[in-house]
Amino acid sequence: MAALITYSDPAEDGYVQGDVYPRGPWGPETHVQRGANVYDFIVPGDPLTPGWASVPGARRIAEGESRILPRMMSAPLSFKDARVLLEALDGPVRPAGWQGGGPFAYHVGPGPARVRLKLDIPRETRTIRDIIARIPGTDPDPAVARQVVLLSNHHDAWTYGGVDPSSGTATALELGRSLGELRRRGFSPRRTLVIGVWDAEEFTLTGSTEWGEEHRDLLSRDAVACLNVDASTSGDRLAMSATPSLRPFLYEAARAVADPKGRGTVYDVWGAGEGANIRGYGVAAGEKTAEPGVDILGSGSDYTVFFNHLGIPSVDLLFDGPYGVYHSAYDSHEWMRRHGDPGFAYHAAMARLWGVMALRLANADAMPFDFATYGRELIAYIDDLEGVAKGKNLALDLGAARSQARRLAALSPLFPGAADRDTAEPLRLAERDLLAPDGIPDRPWFRHLVYAPLPSYAAETLPGVREAVVAGDSARAARQAAVLADAIRRVADRLRAPEP
Amino acid sequence: MAALITYSDPAEDGYVQGDVYPRGPWGPETHVQRGANVYDFIVPGDPLTPGWASVPGARRIAEGESRILPRMMSAPLSFKDARVLLEALDGPVRPAGWQGGGPFAYHVGPGPARVRLKLDIPRETRTIRDIIARIPGTDPDPAVARQVVLLSNHHDAWTYGGVDPSSGTATALELGRSLGELRRRGFSPRRTLVIGVWDAEEFTLTGSTEWGEEHRDLLSRDAVACLNVDASTSGDRLAMSATPSLRPFLYEAARAVADPKGRGTVYDVWGAGEGANIRGYGVAAGEKTAEPGVDILGSGSDYTVFFNHLGIPSVDLLFDGPYGVYHSAYDSHEWMRRHGDPGFAYHAAMARLWGVMALRLANADAMPFDFATYGRELIAYIDDLEGVAKGKNLALDLGAARSQARRLAALSPLFPGAADRDTAEPLRLAERDLLAPDGIPDRPWFRHLVYAPLPSYAAETLPGVREAVVAGDSARAARQAAVLADAIRRVADRLRAPEP
Repeated sequence: MAALITYSDPAEDGYVQGDVYPRGPWGPETHVQRGANVYDFIVPGDPLTPGWASVPGARRIAEGESRILPRMMSAPLSFKDARVLLEALDGPVRPAGWQGGGPFAYHVGPGPARVRLKLDIPRETRTIRDIIARIPGTDPDPAVARQVVLLSNHHDAWTYGGVDPSSGTATALELGRSLGELRRRGFSPRRTLVIGVWDAEEFTLTGSTEWGEEHRDLLSRDAVACLNVDASTSGDRLAMSATPSLRPFLYEAARAVADPKGRGTVYDVWGAGEGANIRGYGVAAGEKTAEPGVDILGSGSDYTVFFNHLGIPSVDLLFDGPYGVYHSAYDSHEWMRRHGDPGFAYHAAMARLWGVMALRLANADAMPFDFATYGRELIAYIDDLEGVAKGKNLALDLGAARSQARRLAALSPLFPGAADRDTAEPLRLAERDLLAPDGIPDRPWFRHLVYAPLPSYAAETLPGVREAVVAGDSARAARQAAVLADAIRRVADRLRAPEP
Repeated sequence: MAALITYSDPAEDGYVQGDVYPRGPWGPETHVQRGANVYDFIVPGDPLTPGWASVPGARRIAEGESRILPRMMSAPLSFKDARVLLEALDGPVRPAGWQGGGPFAYHVGPGPARVRLKLDIPRETRTIRDIIARIPGTDPDPAVARQVVLLSNHHDAWTYGGVDPSSGTATALELGRSLGELRRRGFSPRRTLVIGVWDAEEFTLTGSTEWGEEHRDLLSRDAVACLNVDASTSGDRLAMSATPSLRPFLYEAARAVADPKGRGTVYDVWGAGEGANIRGYGVAAGEKTAEPGVDILGSGSDYTVFFNHLGIPSVDLLFDGPYGVYHSAYDSHEWMRRHGDPGFAYHAAMARLWGVMALRLANADAMPFDFATYGRELIAYIDDLEGVAKGKNLALDLGAARSQARRLAALSPLFPGAADRDTAEPLRLAERDLLAPDGIPDRPWFRHLVYAPLPSYAAETLPGVREAVVAGDSARAARQAAVLADAIRRVADRLRAPEP
């Protein structure tokens, strides 16, 4: 390969899906989907400070040492431009399944047309600006008051960013204004609220990653949860990705917010959602319940450093809908006014939902984390992975991990005595136990043993063991199975779950 | 409804399938698929002489009495013209599954655009011309010599008809020339060969239907089989529809003709074919074997009067391939030269195959008809239909029909003593036993009890019983089940199959 040219096919985000802008929400043939082509599933953030904060005076590696910078040119095109190239391909007719939505028979190459690609992309160090707001906790116990509920969003955008991220940033500003107003009226939270509005999310999650690395020790000690809202709204249907222990809390919060279209609460219209990041990428499903689906956390937004690197329970929130103009110049305020959220009522609903979650966590006696759900979910992942190993005729014993997961699954749904401050602390910290200090093989920055991003927005479960199985390396799989079992045992021990 | 406008969507026969003419064989956006919109699944032929021959002096009904003439205007459009109408529809976006291959989001109506449809179609009686050639049989037994092997084709076309039917007509002319040459050299067939090249096939199969009705009594007495070739060639892969008793004969004949591309015999490359008329329309499959699939006889070509009305064993032959220009002005000699059969080798192969079949039947001591296969096929249809009835909670007892079908299935594959002239006659005539004198309910012209056309090119099996089941009429279903069992019993008795 000499270079990579990507384009948006109308079969995926254009007229094959529905009406295109301005008539409808889907992308017109002139839309270009921008994006960062980097290997941030290895390590996100500033490519020259992998694993430590990019602050003045920090050590910086040479560009050639970076594992995540691309090695070839890459450019996105609109379908209108790309079809000129597609129609110039004169190899065989495309194989089955590769016909797109363009009004011609697709062919593969090579040629006969040749493309000359010349990109003018500045290569330089720039200043980025994270915006951090803080409402200090007022609990009389300073060890509680300093605990942090983190509200996370970013403010940088590809072109206008009407949805991504300005819908989320507008929501964050409105929520910040409301929390300030509450404080002026005398309602201060017991724990500390931090609103982080990051820069350079679109370049490898840089603002959040560097801030998280800079404040690693304090966050590891004090963080309660990360509530991330990237885009807040591209439609009217709630979608969430989250760590399993938060599910009952998320359901409860969603039942407290009215649906702006009068269809009950936002919980009631949530059920049929397609999910924010993960669903549809073929990720093995976990536990099946009658509750709305909550996707597993992938990557592609700012929870990554907090969840995958630091083990802080995280959730990503969105009102979802047809969003064919993603990362293009049509993702504008006008698109939102016409299609995404006419009247901006779901922006306001997200401010309510996000605020309800933040204040409940900030003021809770108990930590409303449910590790019985986490245990059942782990068992589903273990079953799935054993099926994969069996399909490859690879010996794999996940019995120890399953035993420990069963200890969690047998916990009462909300940890007994959770209202007791002494037992609330283990619940707040238990997700940290699922980190491996050395990370997963070959990408040490990713330390969470249950979830890791794939080279896309999707994620995989039990990445350490799974990647060994996929590689057919039974010795490594056995070592990783032991690491996983140890981690789940640490959680079960911390929560004083009975031995099997 | 005020009128019917049909068009060819590029998802079905245009660029979504592959390259369009002239680059490839599929239909360009300017192609218009013509066709006759009449109810010829009720009765084909001249609409004013339903069931009798349209000859000078024949009784003619009034147009208003015809059951098959359309009651509203109907016009086909090209996609290029139709998209103007489609893009003017402003109702909701199409439901799932209704997006076509056009480069816009499809909507349903009504309006707001209005269409004024004005058609200039002459309404008149015209002379049509069937071409009949005859090579008299020379068997010393005049009862054998007068027996007829019918070779059937038509010569009328929508516009140019490069494939449909001229590929078949050219093949018929070449075969006729060859048979004439054989005769001049002294090789005359024992039985009579008749080549019928019909007119007005595209208007309700008129030429063949009227000729079949005119010669009904002689054909009923003397016919051996109808070998129909409509289009002979749109590609390089053999496809057949046939009555089940002919299958072993068809396989044997196909093994006698070399594939022009050197891939063995035409039998060897037949296996993966998609079939001529039926497959893909959801018709219940019959017996599954390792042999190439032979489709059931639908309608839409000239075997209809001979098979469905007169009970003459029939086969329809085709070399199939991508044929996106069906019934359009692009179905031309030039299309054939470029795409359908460059070099015209499959035209020649069809002349060989058709001729091998005709001469083997004309000169056979035995009738190579296999009623054990027919019996197994009937059992498959009976099983399928009982499943349909069960799904509708309708009581249906097909036990008597199944018992009789089992008598057939137990016959030795080629009827014992078939080489004996006295036992050959029952085999030649057995298909006639599957006719009901009164036809199937509500369409008496269609007398075959095992197959009948649906309102399309597709067919259904056991139509009398099936239509009663679909209508939920258990009394009628029981009566039709008895009629069916009697018919199969007549076949089994004629072939002296042992009683169960």
